[in-house]
Amino acid sequence: MQDDYDLVIRGGTVVSATQVFRADVAIRGETIAAIGDGLRAPKEIDAGGLLVMPGGVDTHCHLDQVEPGMGYGAENFFSGSQSALRGGTTSAISFVTQFKGEPIREVLAETLRRGRRSIIDYSFHQIITDPSDEVIAEIPAVVASGIRSLKVFLTYDGARLDDRQYLKVLAAARREGAMTVVHCENYDAIGWMTEQLLAAGLTAPKYHAWSRPKVVEREATYRAIALAELVDTPIQVFHVSCAEVAEEIARAKLRGLKVWGETCPQYFAISAADMARENFEGAKYMCSPAPRDVQDREGLWEMMRRGVLDVVSSDHSAFNFTGAFAKDMNGRDAPFRDIPNGVPGVGTRMPLLFSEGVVKGKIDLPTFVGLTATNPARIFGLEGRKGAIVPGADADIVLWDAAKTRTVTNADLHHAVDHTPYEGREVTGWPVVTLRRGEVVMRDGEVTGAEGSGAFLARGPYAIATPTGHLPNGFDASTATLATT
Amino acid sequence: MQDDYDLVIRGGTVVSATQVFRADVAIRGETIAAIGDGLRAPKEIDAGGLLVMPGGVDTHCHLDQVEPGMGYGAENFFSGSQSALRGGTTSAISFVTQFKGEPIREVLAETLRRGRRSIIDYSFHQIITDPSDEVIAEIPAVVASGIRSLKVFLTYDGARLDDRQYLKVLAAARREGAMTVVHCENYDAIGWMTEQLLAAGLTAPKYHAWSRPKVVEREATYRAIALAELVDTPIQVFHVSCAEVAEEIARAKLRGLKVWGETCPQYFAISAADMARENFEGAKYMCSPAPRDVQDREGLWEMMRRGVLDVVSSDHSAFNFTGAFAKDMNGRDAPFRDIPNGVPGVGTRMPLLFSEGVVKGKIDLPTFVGLTATNPARIFGLEGRKGAIVPGADADIVLWDAAKTRTVTNADLHHAVDHTPYEGREVTGWPVVTLRRGEVVMRDGEVTGAEGSGAFLARGPYAIATPTGHLPNGFDASTATLATT
Amino acid sequence: MQDDYDLVIRGGTVVSATQVFRADVAIRGETIAAIGDGLRAPKEIDAGGLLVMPGGVDTHCHLDQVEPGMGYGAENFFSGSQSALRGGTTSAISFVTQFKGEPIREVLAETLRRGRRSIIDYSFHQIITDPSDEVIAEIPAVVASGIRSLKVFLTYDGARLDDRQYLKVLAAARREGAMTVVHCENYDAIGWMTEQLLAAGLTAPKYHAWSRPKVVEREATYRAIALAELVDTPIQVFHVSCAEVAEEIARAKLRGLKVWGETCPQYFAISAADMARENFEGAKYMCSPAPRDVQDREGLWEMMRRGVLDVVSSDHSAFNFTGAFAKDMNGRDAPFRDIPNGVPGVGTRMPLLFSEGVVKGKIDLPTFVGLTATNPARIFGLEGRKGAIVPGADADIVLWDAAKTRTVTNADLHHAVDHTPYEGREVTGWPVVTLRRGEVVMRDGEVTGAEGSGAFLARGPYAIATPTGHLPNGFDASTATLATT
Amino acid sequence: MQDDYDLVIRGGTVVSATQVFRADVAIRGETIAAIGDGLRAPKEIDAGGLLVMPGGVDTHCHLDQVEPGMGYGAENFFSGSQSALRGGTTSAISFVTQFKGEPIREVLAETLRRGRRSIIDYSFHQIITDPSDEVIAEIPAVVASGIRSLKVFLTYDGARLDDRQYLKVLAAARREGAMTVVHCENYDAIGWMTEQLLAAGLTAPKYHAWSRPKVVEREATYRAIALAELVDTPIQVFHVSCAEVAEEIARAKLRGLKVWGETCPQYFAISAADMARENFEGAKYMCSPAPRDVQDREGLWEMMRRGVLDVVSSDHSAFNFTGAFAKDMNGRDAPFRDIPNGVPGVGTRMPLLFSEGVVKGKIDLPTFVGLTATNPARIFGLEGRKGAIVPGADADIVLWDAAKTRTVTNADLHHAVDHTPYEGREVTGWPVVTLRRGEVVMRDGEVTGAEGSGAFLARGPYAIATPTGHLPNGFDASTATLATT
Repeated sequence: MQDDYDLVIRGGTVVSATQVFRADVAIRGETIAAIGDGLRAPKEIDAGGLLVMPGGVDTHCHLDQVEPGMGYGAENFFSGSQSALRGGTTSAISFVTQFKGEPIREVLAETLRRGRRSIIDYSFHQIITDPSDEVIAEIPAVVASGIRSLKVFLTYDGARLDDRQYLKVLAAARREGAMTVVHCENYDAIGWMTEQLLAAGLTAPKYHAWSRPKVVEREATYRAIALAELVDTPIQVFHVSCAEVAEEIARAKLRGLKVWGETCPQYFAISAADMARENFEGAKYMCSPAPRDVQDREGLWEMMRRGVLDVVSSDHSAFNFTGAFAKDMNGRDAPFRDIPNGVPGVGTRMPLLFSEGVVKGKIDLPTFVGLTATNPARIFGLEGRKGAIVPGADADIVLWDAAKTRTVTNADLHHAVDHTPYEGREVTGWPVVTLRRGEVVMRDGEVTGAEGSGAFLARGPYAIATPTGHLPNGFDASTATLATT
Repeated sequence: MQDDYDLVIRGGTVVSATQVFRADVAIRGETIAAIGDGLRAPKEIDAGGLLVMPGGVDTHCHLDQVEPGMGYGAENFFSGSQSALRGGTTSAISFVTQFKGEPIREVLAETLRRGRRSIIDYSFHQIITDPSDEVIAEIPAVVASGIRSLKVFLTYDGARLDDRQYLKVLAAARREGAMTVVHCENYDAIGWMTEQLLAAGLTAPKYHAWSRPKVVEREATYRAIALAELVDTPIQVFHVSCAEVAEEIARAKLRGLKVWGETCPQYFAISAADMARENFEGAKYMCSPAPRDVQDREGLWEMMRRGVLDVVSSDHSAFNFTGAFAKDMNGRDAPFRDIPNGVPGVGTRMPLLFSEGVVKGKIDLPTFVGLTATNPARIFGLEGRKGAIVPGADADIVLWDAAKTRTVTNADLHHAVDHTPYEGREVTGWPVVTLRRGEVVMRDGEVTGAEGSGAFLARGPYAIATPTGHLPNGFDASTATLATT
Repeated sequence: MQDDYDLVIRGGTVVSATQVFRADVAIRGETIAAIGDGLRAPKEIDAGGLLVMPGGVDTHCHLDQVEPGMGYGAENFFSGSQSALRGGTTSAISFVTQFKGEPIREVLAETLRRGRRSIIDYSFHQIITDPSDEVIAEIPAVVASGIRSLKVFLTYDGARLDDRQYLKVLAAARREGAMTVVHCENYDAIGWMTEQLLAAGLTAPKYHAWSRPKVVEREATYRAIALAELVDTPIQVFHVSCAEVAEEIARAKLRGLKVWGETCPQYFAISAADMARENFEGAKYMCSPAPRDVQDREGLWEMMRRGVLDVVSSDHSAFNFTGAFAKDMNGRDAPFRDIPNGVPGVGTRMPLLFSEGVVKGKIDLPTFVGLTATNPARIFGLEGRKGAIVPGADADIVLWDAAKTRTVTNADLHHAVDHTPYEGREVTGWPVVTLRRGEVVMRDGEVTGAEGSGAFLARGPYAIATPTGHLPNGFDASTATLATT
Repeated sequence: MQDDYDLVIRGGTVVSATQVFRADVAIRGETIAAIGDGLRAPKEIDAGGLLVMPGGVDTHCHLDQVEPGMGYGAENFFSGSQSALRGGTTSAISFVTQFKGEPIREVLAETLRRGRRSIIDYSFHQIITDPSDEVIAEIPAVVASGIRSLKVFLTYDGARLDDRQYLKVLAAARREGAMTVVHCENYDAIGWMTEQLLAAGLTAPKYHAWSRPKVVEREATYRAIALAELVDTPIQVFHVSCAEVAEEIARAKLRGLKVWGETCPQYFAISAADMARENFEGAKYMCSPAPRDVQDREGLWEMMRRGVLDVVSSDHSAFNFTGAFAKDMNGRDAPFRDIPNGVPGVGTRMPLLFSEGVVKGKIDLPTFVGLTATNPARIFGLEGRKGAIVPGADADIVLWDAAKTRTVTNADLHHAVDHTPYEGREVTGWPVVTLRRGEVVMRDGEVTGAEGSGAFLARGPYAIATPTGHLPNGFDASTATLATT
């Protein structure tokens, strides 16, 4: 019976990744029951004048992640959830860190335990820092448990894989039908550039950008794609900073490879110049890859419009500005090399993209929904559950006031990190109500969802994570067998 | 009240241009009322095991079109509608022909009158063959009446515009916010090649392809785009035959131009070799641009997948094989120049694309829906009404049996044309029920919609048909004014 | 016997299109006898500290050319020769104008007669403005007489060919083994833009550039190449103004087509801004295609360095600033459409390229020699005689003082035109001695070559002017035969 | 006095990198004294009917090179010289191997000592396998001694540099004005693929190609270029095997980078299929990168024609088929990994390129001279001395009979290696006389040059080996200083 809806969102303008239309949205229990005209239920939310969009899916978000030698970061699932919901995001994928020389299972158990505080729904990418045979042997179980993506770093001490290690992970991903996500920068080049800069006495935060120019990111991106082509397994390139790098992804797509690209607000909303701010303020804008120049932004928008960059995530990072686990942990005179990098942003991701992208005419509404919800859900195996307002999907919905203007302050963001790089910035467009699986969990900035009400999203096999079928000479190196085609 | 639905399509798999999901679709009156789970109505259609897709929108279809000196073609709106519905298409855009030296108004009135027999919904492109000042002066009224697209030919005696005439039409389109659609082949080159071929005694149907090789289409496509860039007004390139031509569209898109590309089944389902069939049979495969080689097909699929080609239309043509208004009207020994060209296909468009594209793994289901329904509706100003199963849109829906295998015969197609180039071909996937504005108008091959029940689709202003804002030197030649930016 | 040299140029630095080396150059009679070390002759020229380069070959130069309705231009072969020699140029190709409705033979005879006053060696491109069957029938004899290149215009009233006429000329060129050279701008687009600009009251000289933006040149270039590909015959694109246009030539070369590109000093030494100069001065800078913006120059240099643009010619034009056959012939308030366009430059071509290109580090010395002498000679069938200092070639040599700085004045140029657009400009690098076929014909600005001592250069068949062998479907439309491969 | 020539080559057709012309060539002592017409000397060589071309410069040739753990290879300078001269090559650049953990100086001294047996002139690339601070400190002296190029390997156990080591070498090259030459294949990928192939029991020689498909070479090429861009120092990519790899070089050139490309006869004259020959014969065709497929050849010729690949070298390798230092040193059942790879070819380089390239119409004569002599001399600092027939240059000349047909046999090649992969192949075009510094050192296959008469070519600073001046952020990491521009 269709009169048994629990809740109807009435009179709003629904946005999908291709359409904008007027409709009510009915919810039964935790899922979307119907999208229609004149729907009714005992409980109703008036969405007149508001956009009704799928709750954001932030597929790159560091919550309760343990850092080698540092413990768990400032942001836990509970604090991060509150910021996420206030910014329209209802699901996130965080990370399980496999430590060098250690197995996955303990850290996975602990991270899953910590996730239980979440209000938003959540899943994990499994970071592999040390693909020993033992660790590789754990991967089938990890993937089968629903953690269907492996994260690797091509740079960072303690995390970086060399190419052979990267190939081992790609092969495991191929065997298990998992997606691999890659931080692409050239480790050796950054190390060498850093040494030379420090030798020259160029130590201030802004030289962080000098230590890793575009070519360093572009090279590693090309390499990451080429090796994935050798193994024939899909990858997503994380946090692409500029069009020059995205162009290599575009070329790969044209060749029929399964390669996706992600970017983040820090690449269109802040710039390299911000890192030169005085009094150590520049440190707040340090992340990797480094923010590029203001004139690089237009190219980045073009790559989003063209569909070369499929996802905008936050890469929300959990370093404070001051204290332990903080930017100044090595003192405010520390050379850039010794300043933790990463910026918070789980709560500002969608408002910044809306304000800079939609309001300023760089992208249209369906593209906004595609970048923040539909594409990330699809690429990471959540299609049908997350990222789209379709019957049967989880009723994760954000009601958005496109005209509302706000000034960002860190206090308002309600995350645990003690600062935001966007402090004082005016943005237009802001969420007013957020529903997660049918429950209103945020209204007018107040989070009402209960601690621990978020669900772990076990992700099953999905087509997008499978090989293309094109192997050089038909040899499947991941299993040491001749492919049977 | 949501219990007042008139009809529910239950238990099917709904396909949109981005998603595939299980849902019921409820209809109230002529429009989609809801997409949901557990919807109920007095009348229900069991869609178990079927795909539920938006009714096809065929934006290039010659129905009841008058040809200079020949009268109206074999296919009228009533006969064409029956074939369309049997093939899953519920809307079409046909053509109003402006004759050289004559005004638009009479032929428009007569064509509109003929349209009233239609079962499917319909609109028109206004063909301009002679952009005299008088004709140009009629365009505002034509566009205001809902015929919001202008068709021009860069080749064909009696229809071809030279570049200056084309610019006049583009300028009118810009002023009125209309889309321009273009047949791109180089008139002079075809004329000259034809003359040389006939001089060499190469007169058989297959030499039709020789008279207009790819370069002739590619040149005109580049020119059509360049002149539209000069005026800054959007265009769609009709019936792109191969990747080499589509590549110029891809380049234009990358530069930010508003250029769309269409292709047709004749470019992936038949080939130049078919024109060499004996006993004049080759004539059945003649169309312009000419079918290319079998090895050109893979590139065409790639261009569909990449979104360079946005639309698959039929370019349904109304020439019989035998008789008046027929391929053999000048005798079976007539040189290719004197054989009418064009192939029928309003009824086979969607089945062929499904069978060759989806079933053979060239494109996925959402891409199929995008190419056949969502994109054509969006490009031609029907978004919100046609091309998507969303609340408020017209309930134009096709229920598709993806596994059903059929052999194409002309008798089965129920169009008025006396042949099909696909006679005897096995295809997999076929429509079983078609609804137009909530009414079941075709079931199991039987058309039940009443003659004349189709509605004229007046198309209003829409964003996609507006300029980009980039004019050389900021001079708007369409109004002879400096653009104020 | 090698001791019978007539003249030795001693101690200079010889530049070829690939090498720079110290050597003496020995001349016997009219040709180069030897390049060597320690050569001796009764007469010697001390080239210590000077560059020894092939005399310039200016393959686009309007001398004693008749204009429809206007008679012969201001510049005759005698006056033009003096300027050429002072600027280092020893050969030029001018034009024979075929008038609409008239045969070639009379105007050819008269033009040849006028050529007899030349001091520099000379040849002609045969302009075809009206490829009637009668005119086409004359082409074999014209080509056989040594005029092995046909010039066509895709714009200009009275000269413009439509595409079919252009194809007829290309076919004749293919049959006769002649090169076709093309002025590429879209006639209709320019006509229409001009009409709109004048309607808007935008009549000043600077609007000349607005009437023909880059896209108008780029379109015609693409078209010229595509139609030449259809016929399979080589072409050179004249006076390419910017990288955007050259890119289409680059693409054609990559596809294996025989397409060459020419540019001129007016595209790197003056700019669109010059046309806005007051008091009708702007008219001095009007030419077609129009000069582009200063920021377009870097791209043009890149295209020369890459070898996409093979030739720098002068396109020396013979309009005065004042008087009959002059810029102001229709009054100084005439709209831009009625101002003759073209700039003089036979004498400044090499110094400007040297000063702007070599001295400023844009191109190296071998590239300078390639662009001004070796490439034009090769492309137009003069290899072995002109454009290179090799034994057996004509002893056309310029001794160049790379450090000499001069201020350009029209008086110094000694051409007949009453102005130069480069008046007052400082240039570095200037010829000090010019030899033509072994004779010193210019020294320190004084021309000593006798009137009439220049020779007509009959050009014979050469490989570069032959087809590539790739014809669509193997059909040779130029002869209406199937190619036998 | 010009009558003091020692020797004249009379009546031949001289070929330069841009021209073909009839001339005599006069020699005085060791250098070219004159190119001219009617030159005379006491000694004359009749070159009637022959091509007169610069002696080949083979810039990649392993002569008397020591291999870690294996000693010096089969080919010493004396034996290699004989083969080189019979094949038209008069200069070669071989290698000095720096061993891991050892300094350069001893091996350099020994290698120089061995070079003294050479008949051809010679220089060296300095291989760096271990850029420790001590080794880096030796580089200035090595470069100053005339060894102005550094060779690095991105693959091979015992030789491979990681990216940071490669950057250290690039920085040293930048500081010293040296060229860096790079073997580009991905070490880790090859190692991993090899492991998987062997695990699958795929051990035969043909699997050598499977262990290193194109993508492995393409990736490393991209990386080598990117890191050279970071440092801003010129590189040459060695032995490019196919167009797919060359395309990355083309892209780099277009961006203004100083990157050159080399290929070798093994990439157009043998193919991957040859490695499948039975009875261990396949081992004769193993080299790295691996030969590609026959259908890859056309693309390679195109890259030579376009000037993307600038040099054809031999990469002459000194492994026998049987015995010590031989293909079968680990037994004929050894897995491909344990078979030494590399093919001999110093003597066949020019004949194969002539026969496959010039005779078959893939490249023209000037391109042949450019690829074999002029370009390699220019890129490696020998311009003015080697690679061109210009006065003052060394009189290194080959007289070539373009019509002479020969069957290659190893005996005829007179190198020390016991086989040739071209055994039994018919080639057209062969050298008949070779002169080195004015002396006839080979005539009709008989080498008459004395052992030890070859000279060491100390190479001085040259422009092509200097930076472009474009550094990211203007930071010169090679000296840890801000660039002053």
